[in-house]
Amino acid sequence: MTRTVHSRFELRAAELHPSVDDPALHSMTFLNEVSHRYPDAISLAAGRPVESFFELDSVHRYLDVFCQHLRDDLGYSEEEVRRTIFQYGRTKGVLHHLIARNLAVDENIDADPESVVVTVGCQEALYLCLRALRSDDQDVVLAVSPTYVGLAGAARLADMRVLPVREAGGIDFDDLFSVLRHARGRGLRPRALYVIPDFANPSGVNMTVEDKRRLLDVAAQQDFLVLEDNPYGLFSDTDERPPTLKALDTRNQVVYLGTLAKSALPGVRIGYAVADQEVVTAHGTRTLFADELAKIKSMVTVNTSPIAQAIAGGRLLEHGCSLVRANARETEHYRVNRRHLLNGLADRFRRGDPDAAGVSWNSPTGGFFVVVTVPFAADDALLERSARVHGVLWTPMHHFYLGDGGLNQLRLSCAALPPEQVDLGLDRLHALVTESLTASRKGAKHQC
Amino acid sequence: MTRTVHSRFELRAAELHPSVDDPALHSMTFLNEVSHRYPDAISLAAGRPVESFFELDSVHRYLDVFCQHLRDDLGYSEEEVRRTIFQYGRTKGVLHHLIARNLAVDENIDADPESVVVTVGCQEALYLCLRALRSDDQDVVLAVSPTYVGLAGAARLADMRVLPVREAGGIDFDDLFSVLRHARGRGLRPRALYVIPDFANPSGVNMTVEDKRRLLDVAAQQDFLVLEDNPYGLFSDTDERPPTLKALDTRNQVVYLGTLAKSALPGVRIGYAVADQEVVTAHGTRTLFADELAKIKSMVTVNTSPIAQAIAGGRLLEHGCSLVRANARETEHYRVNRRHLLNGLADRFRRGDPDAAGVSWNSPTGGFFVVVTVPFAADDALLERSARVHGVLWTPMHHFYLGDGGLNQLRLSCAALPPEQVDLGLDRLHALVTESLTASRKGAKHQC
Repeated sequence: MTRTVHSRFELRAAELHPSVDDPALHSMTFLNEVSHRYPDAISLAAGRPVESFFELDSVHRYLDVFCQHLRDDLGYSEEEVRRTIFQYGRTKGVLHHLIARNLAVDENIDADPESVVVTVGCQEALYLCLRALRSDDQDVVLAVSPTYVGLAGAARLADMRVLPVREAGGIDFDDLFSVLRHARGRGLRPRALYVIPDFANPSGVNMTVEDKRRLLDVAAQQDFLVLEDNPYGLFSDTDERPPTLKALDTRNQVVYLGTLAKSALPGVRIGYAVADQEVVTAHGTRTLFADELAKIKSMVTVNTSPIAQAIAGGRLLEHGCSLVRANARETEHYRVNRRHLLNGLADRFRRGDPDAAGVSWNSPTGGFFVVVTVPFAADDALLERSARVHGVLWTPMHHFYLGDGGLNQLRLSCAALPPEQVDLGLDRLHALVTESLTASRKGAKHQC
Repeated sequence: MTRTVHSRFELRAAELHPSVDDPALHSMTFLNEVSHRYPDAISLAAGRPVESFFELDSVHRYLDVFCQHLRDDLGYSEEEVRRTIFQYGRTKGVLHHLIARNLAVDENIDADPESVVVTVGCQEALYLCLRALRSDDQDVVLAVSPTYVGLAGAARLADMRVLPVREAGGIDFDDLFSVLRHARGRGLRPRALYVIPDFANPSGVNMTVEDKRRLLDVAAQQDFLVLEDNPYGLFSDTDERPPTLKALDTRNQVVYLGTLAKSALPGVRIGYAVADQEVVTAHGTRTLFADELAKIKSMVTVNTSPIAQAIAGGRLLEHGCSLVRANARETEHYRVNRRHLLNGLADRFRRGDPDAAGVSWNSPTGGFFVVVTVPFAADDALLERSARVHGVLWTPMHHFYLGDGGLNQLRLSCAALPPEQVDLGLDRLHALVTESLTASRKGAKHQC
């Protein structure tokens, strides 16, 4: 079984785990490549948070504030402070009590700090959940589609199949029942449903409170967990935000996935899971699902950088653990930008204008994203042309669909841009759409 | 398929991924529990680095130094500096060029910065490698046993089997050939061998340069990668350190796994892989193995906290990217402690003393660990008694074996303790050993 000794060792891609060839990855790679090839194009594509409020000095301040909290509020000695910040530490993290306090203050969620697992971004939390829930290849996860691309990636790493459920402006219950029935008919076990109920990525859509309650009832009847991901719920047009699924969860059916990437700093890479479900062992003993997730975490990243946690913790502490208060400026920025984007679309694509026939968009009341529907294919080729000829980037929606869909849709983000850039971006998008409409009309005439 | 709706949702442990029931995990849990139950016991068990040199102010300084490096050496604008530190960033990291420089300065390794993937500790690097190399269940990884418990954990998460290879003071080549032959005979594909060649955890053992060269030849002939983990190589008694496997690697067969946990700060959770192998796709195009690992990383943790990377980077920059220089004090501390431990063992267990018959130990010339062999079972029950009655903690070696072995061995670590605590710990260990020898002699008489 020896082979010719090459001068250099080579690997064959076909002999690597199939996840490295995942369509979701190719999507991300393609989108990154386009934005790299056209660095001067205005990006209505990027989902990153606004940067203009970042201050280097704040890092020093946050770290000091957190250390002072350890001394003053938790009674730590200097030695204990240094050990907490610098040494290997608790697998579930050192920020759990502040996250629990934040969830109480901002979301009316009553979370036991012991049920909180601090993770390296929300992506790790998602991976831990799927890895834990996939005991064999009959276990599957459902996801409202279109969805966050990281869901498909995490599932692929856990070798877990994802079954799409139609969105229909929230969640299509008929389709949910149908997917559950078909899955069980094929001997599969639906373990969880992944959903972003508030100002979703990519759709901007919200589930109604009524639908949230109904989803919890269905999950209870049909015995699956709900993985609620909530990166954008904070950034709402109205100060009266609707309750999250977790706030409505009286039966421990919801694993709540949070991130401080959008609400504190992306650069700390801090996310978390609230996993308060009880796990019953063969011996009848009970643990928390959070502790099972922590076991898996100990094999992936051991623990989350306590220095990074401390910096995020300082930001929480400076605002009484309220991210609503901490993000007053950011939320206002996103509100202004979103309205600017929606008004800008209305100005450029007027109802009744034959040059805008078939162009429509939704009107999210929060979050980072707006979806535009067009009467032609908004595919990768059009994005490439848009970047090259018109100097504007957006995201083809089909990348977010599990399976088919979204070919006539674009996702626009206005999170990171100043308003004048949004205007310029929309002017360029308008030129692209007009050109494409003309081309498709010509094509239609040709066909006649 | 609906079931009775419980008032609270419960999960069954048997329906979770088997990794949460992994023996390696139970080992860690048991060891942590014992040390928690007996907080006043002196710990010759913990493998953490020395804490006395940690300074909170250094974090601020390191961050500033790294930002200045971005401005002065890389020509970044203030906006680019802030974006690098705070925003989502490069999947392979922002510290790659400094790690490459460090490897050149300290290890005579010529690493292309593009082949470096910065990870959340070395554990993530290990997981990425195993996940990538496990394309189906015929793919297995070999590991010199006893070994680091995190190897078994990472393999379990990737659903990859681990085949142990005997250590025999380095690596037992006859056993290696036998394991390779048997594996191939059963249709398995050995993809890689995991080894800590210098001052290994747990054994403290070093591979000779001759054995390192031979291992590289075997790997080339038999077509497997070598995963070289090197957390302790820096902490050597002699300033002339032997070359790493990677420094001897002329055929890109070695993936070098590094960590800044022991040499910079555990609390930054920064590790890395140098993966300079070429990967050939079905279309004949070529990528670096590092880029395939980065794809997987994007699905696990997206990217490593750039703030944590910046802090680690500041420490590197302050010492011209030499961790040898940065760790002058630490290395001296470990040298003094190791000699103190070895001399203390020799003082307490004298050759020819009938009260020490059958007690021996190895004499590592670097690293954190020393292994003591005793003529009785050094198992979990004895550790519990040791903690409760004698007030001293150590690690039963059997926890580090893949399969059987190590039942008569203890791992001692002297990394974190001051010398007077080492003395006290050894006095207590001596009392335990004397008691156990007496008990086993009585047991032997009983049997007669």
